[in-house]
Amino acid sequence: MQAAAAVDLEDKLQDAGATHAFTGVTPAVAVHVLWDFPQGFDAGVVRLAKKHGVKIGAINPNVFQDQCYKWGSVTNRDPAIRAKAVGHILDCIEIGRGHGQPESLAVVHRRHELPRPGRRPPAEGLGGGRLQEDPRSPPPQHDHAPGVQALRAGLLLHRLLRLGRQLRPVQVVRPRAKVLVDTGHHLAACNIEQIVAWLISEGMLGGFHFNDRKYADDDLEVGSIDPYQAFRIFSEIAGYEWETGRDLDIAYMIDQSHNLEPKVQAMIRTVCRVQELFAKSLCVDREALAAAQAKEDVILAEETLRAGFHMDVTPLLAAVRKKLGVPAEPLWAFRESGYEARAAAERTAKRKALGISEDASYA
Amino acid sequence: MQAAAAVDLEDKLQDAGATHAFTGVTPAVAVHVLWDFPQGFDAGVVRLAKKHGVKIGAINPNVFQDQCYKWGSVTNRDPAIRAKAVGHILDCIEIGRGHGQPESLAVVHRRHELPRPGRRPPAEGLGGGRLQEDPRSPPPQHDHAPGVQALRAGLLLHRLLRLGRQLRPVQVVRPRAKVLVDTGHHLAACNIEQIVAWLISEGMLGGFHFNDRKYADDDLEVGSIDPYQAFRIFSEIAGYEWETGRDLDIAYMIDQSHNLEPKVQAMIRTVCRVQELFAKSLCVDREALAAAQAKEDVILAEETLRAGFHMDVTPLLAAVRKKLGVPAEPLWAFRESGYEARAAAERTAKRKALGISEDASYA
Amino acid sequence: MQAAAAVDLEDKLQDAGATHAFTGVTPAVAVHVLWDFPQGFDAGVVRLAKKHGVKIGAINPNVFQDQCYKWGSVTNRDPAIRAKAVGHILDCIEIGRGHGQPESLAVVHRRHELPRPGRRPPAEGLGGGRLQEDPRSPPPQHDHAPGVQALRAGLLLHRLLRLGRQLRPVQVVRPRAKVLVDTGHHLAACNIEQIVAWLISEGMLGGFHFNDRKYADDDLEVGSIDPYQAFRIFSEIAGYEWETGRDLDIAYMIDQSHNLEPKVQAMIRTVCRVQELFAKSLCVDREALAAAQAKEDVILAEETLRAGFHMDVTPLLAAVRKKLGVPAEPLWAFRESGYEARAAAERTAKRKALGISEDASYA
Amino acid sequence: MQAAAAVDLEDKLQDAGATHAFTGVTPAVAVHVLWDFPQGFDAGVVRLAKKHGVKIGAINPNVFQDQCYKWGSVTNRDPAIRAKAVGHILDCIEIGRGHGQPESLAVVHRRHELPRPGRRPPAEGLGGGRLQEDPRSPPPQHDHAPGVQALRAGLLLHRLLRLGRQLRPVQVVRPRAKVLVDTGHHLAACNIEQIVAWLISEGMLGGFHFNDRKYADDDLEVGSIDPYQAFRIFSEIAGYEWETGRDLDIAYMIDQSHNLEPKVQAMIRTVCRVQELFAKSLCVDREALAAAQAKEDVILAEETLRAGFHMDVTPLLAAVRKKLGVPAEPLWAFRESGYEARAAAERTAKRKALGISEDASYA
Repeated sequence: MQAAAAVDLEDKLQDAGATHAFTGVTPAVAVHVLWDFPQGFDAGVVRLAKKHGVKIGAINPNVFQDQCYKWGSVTNRDPAIRAKAVGHILDCIEIGRGHGQPESLAVVHRRHELPRPGRRPPAEGLGGGRLQEDPRSPPPQHDHAPGVQALRAGLLLHRLLRLGRQLRPVQVVRPRAKVLVDTGHHLAACNIEQIVAWLISEGMLGGFHFNDRKYADDDLEVGSIDPYQAFRIFSEIAGYEWETGRDLDIAYMIDQSHNLEPKVQAMIRTVCRVQELFAKSLCVDREALAAAQAKEDVILAEETLRAGFHMDVTPLLAAVRKKLGVPAEPLWAFRESGYEARAAAERTAKRKALGISEDASYA
Repeated sequence: MQAAAAVDLEDKLQDAGATHAFTGVTPAVAVHVLWDFPQGFDAGVVRLAKKHGVKIGAINPNVFQDQCYKWGSVTNRDPAIRAKAVGHILDCIEIGRGHGQPESLAVVHRRHELPRPGRRPPAEGLGGGRLQEDPRSPPPQHDHAPGVQALRAGLLLHRLLRLGRQLRPVQVVRPRAKVLVDTGHHLAACNIEQIVAWLISEGMLGGFHFNDRKYADDDLEVGSIDPYQAFRIFSEIAGYEWETGRDLDIAYMIDQSHNLEPKVQAMIRTVCRVQELFAKSLCVDREALAAAQAKEDVILAEETLRAGFHMDVTPLLAAVRKKLGVPAEPLWAFRESGYEARAAAERTAKRKALGISEDASYA
Repeated sequence: MQAAAAVDLEDKLQDAGATHAFTGVTPAVAVHVLWDFPQGFDAGVVRLAKKHGVKIGAINPNVFQDQCYKWGSVTNRDPAIRAKAVGHILDCIEIGRGHGQPESLAVVHRRHELPRPGRRPPAEGLGGGRLQEDPRSPPPQHDHAPGVQALRAGLLLHRLLRLGRQLRPVQVVRPRAKVLVDTGHHLAACNIEQIVAWLISEGMLGGFHFNDRKYADDDLEVGSIDPYQAFRIFSEIAGYEWETGRDLDIAYMIDQSHNLEPKVQAMIRTVCRVQELFAKSLCVDREALAAAQAKEDVILAEETLRAGFHMDVTPLLAAVRKKLGVPAEPLWAFRESGYEARAAAERTAKRKALGISEDASYA
Repeated sequence: MQAAAAVDLEDKLQDAGATHAFTGVTPAVAVHVLWDFPQGFDAGVVRLAKKHGVKIGAINPNVFQDQCYKWGSVTNRDPAIRAKAVGHILDCIEIGRGHGQPESLAVVHRRHELPRPGRRPPAEGLGGGRLQEDPRSPPPQHDHAPGVQALRAGLLLHRLLRLGRQLRPVQVVRPRAKVLVDTGHHLAACNIEQIVAWLISEGMLGGFHFNDRKYADDDLEVGSIDPYQAFRIFSEIAGYEWETGRDLDIAYMIDQSHNLEPKVQAMIRTVCRVQELFAKSLCVDREALAAAQAKEDVILAEETLRAGFHMDVTPLLAAVRKKLGVPAEPLWAFRESGYEARAAAERTAKRKALGISEDASYA
């Protein structure tokens, strides 16, 4: 527990505002309908976010916490529960559209539905038959690709709205679904960058939940354990865009758990690290790489890729940040800003005033 | 090295004949075009197989050993090598049809093409773009599903023959491809039975390469490390057939490496173990299981499944074997038959006559 | 959440009593000092346990929940915190001795100290130097053996008490420490039964925390995913005892998390499953196995081991249970006993009376 | 197969000489007694090595290829085979001393003895009892620490020589054994740098077999998949030496398999990469790191470590290489030297002259 931890939604928005103020690239905050608005969505929050310099981004539905979802939500055996889950997801999308979030997307964590390996005992009837029987169930194959744990159901359902709120059979829905890659969920030894390459090639890459892991789903900071893997993923994106001249539309989200690190520092560092690794992937000499590949010169190809990774991108990032009007070194600037000490004092006082335990923190 | 190891193709066919004679359920022998017929397919081998009571089954093409395939076969950058590889595969199918193998299938190991994770250094350009560019490349997604390392390209190409030897674009080819599941290739922690269930549901399960592993691709005997996993896989098949009343057309193949075990004993034991585990999956009380699932009674559902696993199927298998006219206990009967000692003597003499090192064995 | 979930410590003891009443082999309940006795150990609980037919077993110290342990407990850089942690552990042992628990052991989860791989970011200074610098730190090697996550610090510290509460340097302490094997913590592909064999051989096997996993530390029911692995572990114990004629002193504990299964049913089933798999390991023909191993007859050796696994131990367990005066089929007997419905009614009422949310359950 | 591949031992020594000539830091070549000297060690090879600017380093015994070792070597059940294996290892050490290799070490791959997980079927009797029974067996615990697959038996046995060729019981031997860490053998998710830190702390780190892997034991180039992990390992060494002022005596060896890369290029690149990552670890500001750790400032500590990893060490390495009199960029210099084309021509001719297949290469 940290004294500077958020006590309420406003603190959370204030922290998000600080992260944006120091990095210039995180204008949107994802919210959880159930956790952030237990009494229903409060439109006032849009103004509150604006006050702190950010806006409301993804609206995460919650179809796993309520006891009624114990045996599944959109694939529950009970049609009434399926209907409730779908209705809740559609509501989230409506909320998003209401506050002017044009591409309003809602993330449905697939793992809460067809659970991750091992989360359920055998004999649960997760067989093929059942997946087919309900045309409204999300397409089954995504969970089978390791590292791909979640559907970007927002896109899926958002488009369906245009069909008059009628959910269409799987074979129609499937092409519209996109995949959200959580960078810490793939099985050990899985070639995650190859999967990303394939998703791009199939037009199915929706976005990322960034984090890293050493043991399992540790939700550590992205790139803190295996920065070269993150670089290789970014490199697939940069390479595809270079090759095709097309811009990919990808949602980048941070999904980490900071047990030991002060939260805002951890968020700012994460943003900087993603920028750094992405910038390195942009520094790869694509023409040289393509030429080496064409000659099957594996030594030269790999050295060309590695040269990008070892490129010093500090000047490049400094230039970008100057343009954005943010400090050249966001993390050190934040540490010196006094924000954390101020937040700690204010929030300790707020906790005392509200009679809240000092161990409590806002989710 | 074992004295009883096969010296030539006839020994291999004789061993296959012995395995079939003692089990009654392995009438076909897969052959490798390059290894078994270095001078081109010899039709006399069909008669030789018949002499030993077996027939020629799958014709495995070999598009990985020749130096020209160092940088890939059906997805090689060089169109001439792609054409050579495809031609060789089609030849294998023709050979199969020639010797009266109606469903003649040729297995293309996908891993020799888009290599398994880690087999190649990064920077090899395995990007999405490349996969798309060649309509003749095998569908890319199969390797991404863990545990699914190989395409059942025989079915794929066999059907294509009817299109006049014209390979069609990926989107046409893909629905015809089936997947061969190697039971020891999936990544650790992967829910392999769920993938099998999905493949069945999608009509994409082509068959199995049976083996087991503890560390990685150890190619140990199927069920020797995790018999319950093999049972759960079979249970998905049995459950689907019970639920739909349909018979699945699945190719069961053994793909093991016996470093320590005498080979024919290991093969006979493997066949018996597969029978045993499959029989147990047939003993699951499907009605009770479905009823428990419908009530979400996880305790009862799992106990129903487990009851099948712990069922003593010895009497059932004895009855089946009586009907097939083979010994009730094939492994013990074989060990007492004297076959191994006879083969050791004959083959040692043959090695001496041919001046072959006693360390050499026929692949 | 389940209506029959325990509301308070008495409910927990009542459930433990029911488990013991139906199985006859679980007389002791482990307690957590902090969770079960937030106001300090209450000696009345010993009588309460007795009323429900059980006794208090292991006293688990809690050196991880308090904020002061954020940076470690017995290896914290601050000597005052190290002293506090050690003092708390010694208190737990005193408590155990006080209520007549002669072998009173306290389990220190090593992972809360030198955290499991990935739980901490790099750069934390977990280097060798630090481990040495404090003679009171628990011996470092145990965490390195995969699957061995916890020290049986009770034995460790209990013996130290005899040295006058003076903690001795690592080289002295180490021989006294024993290892508690959590059957779901070892890394994937790790040969856990070989580690157990080695621990036995070195006199270092303290006991087990039973559970199973498919993905990571899922804490599923022991034997629910890989019953053959559990059998092989038991088989190492049975084999050692047969070979040496010695009885091993091993603490068997259940450490599972039942998210979906009704808790008492899950506990009774777990106990039965452990009995079943252990009984199977006792049915292995040890003389035949040793003879086959001596001849390096791997086929016969493995079939001898497998014969034990496939032995039907139902009659054996029925006889044991008759002698213990418990039902022959504890799980089915419990399900028919009406205990669950009664507990649900009583505890729902209790929750209402206490104004406790129906989502709350006693840890 | 590559035209420039070595045809005989002299080619191998010539390649080693080239690697040393371009890097200046690889003066010694490890040899395999059985493979390099099928007719017994040839002292002339020492002169041959000298001619090519290198010397003979580790003498690897081979106690796994001969059929007599099928069931184990130094732990074989048959005392005659154990004696033969031990004798062969001692011979290797004598050979090493004979050619003036003062620290003459022989590497015994433990995995050929107590095989890696999964390499043998269950029921093989790898139990604790057996390990104890033979005082000459290598200490059992090393294999259990993941990532530690081999004993540096040279040190072990070399010291034993001083005891008059009498092998002493395990408890005596154990303290003398050191561990050779193969950087690609540890189980997935294993915290290998923590193990290295512990081995250093215990005085048990003998050396490294460098390589990397993505899937399993791929034997890819060290640092090609996870350079940050290699850096963290080096950082433990650098940190210990900084902290204690002591120099560690560590044997650095390369143990890679280059299937696709031209061999000498791959070796030179590997050497450069190890230098690069080690140099980075030396650039970590140890005082700043220690200060951050002392304050538990995890953000600052990690940034301090990362700053070393991202340091551009090109100038430092250029200076070192200038001093050594080798090219500043060994890989590019080698590629431009024409060595490979010359070797290809000469060796193709040699193959033709000797009637050797062009697919053959010297091990």
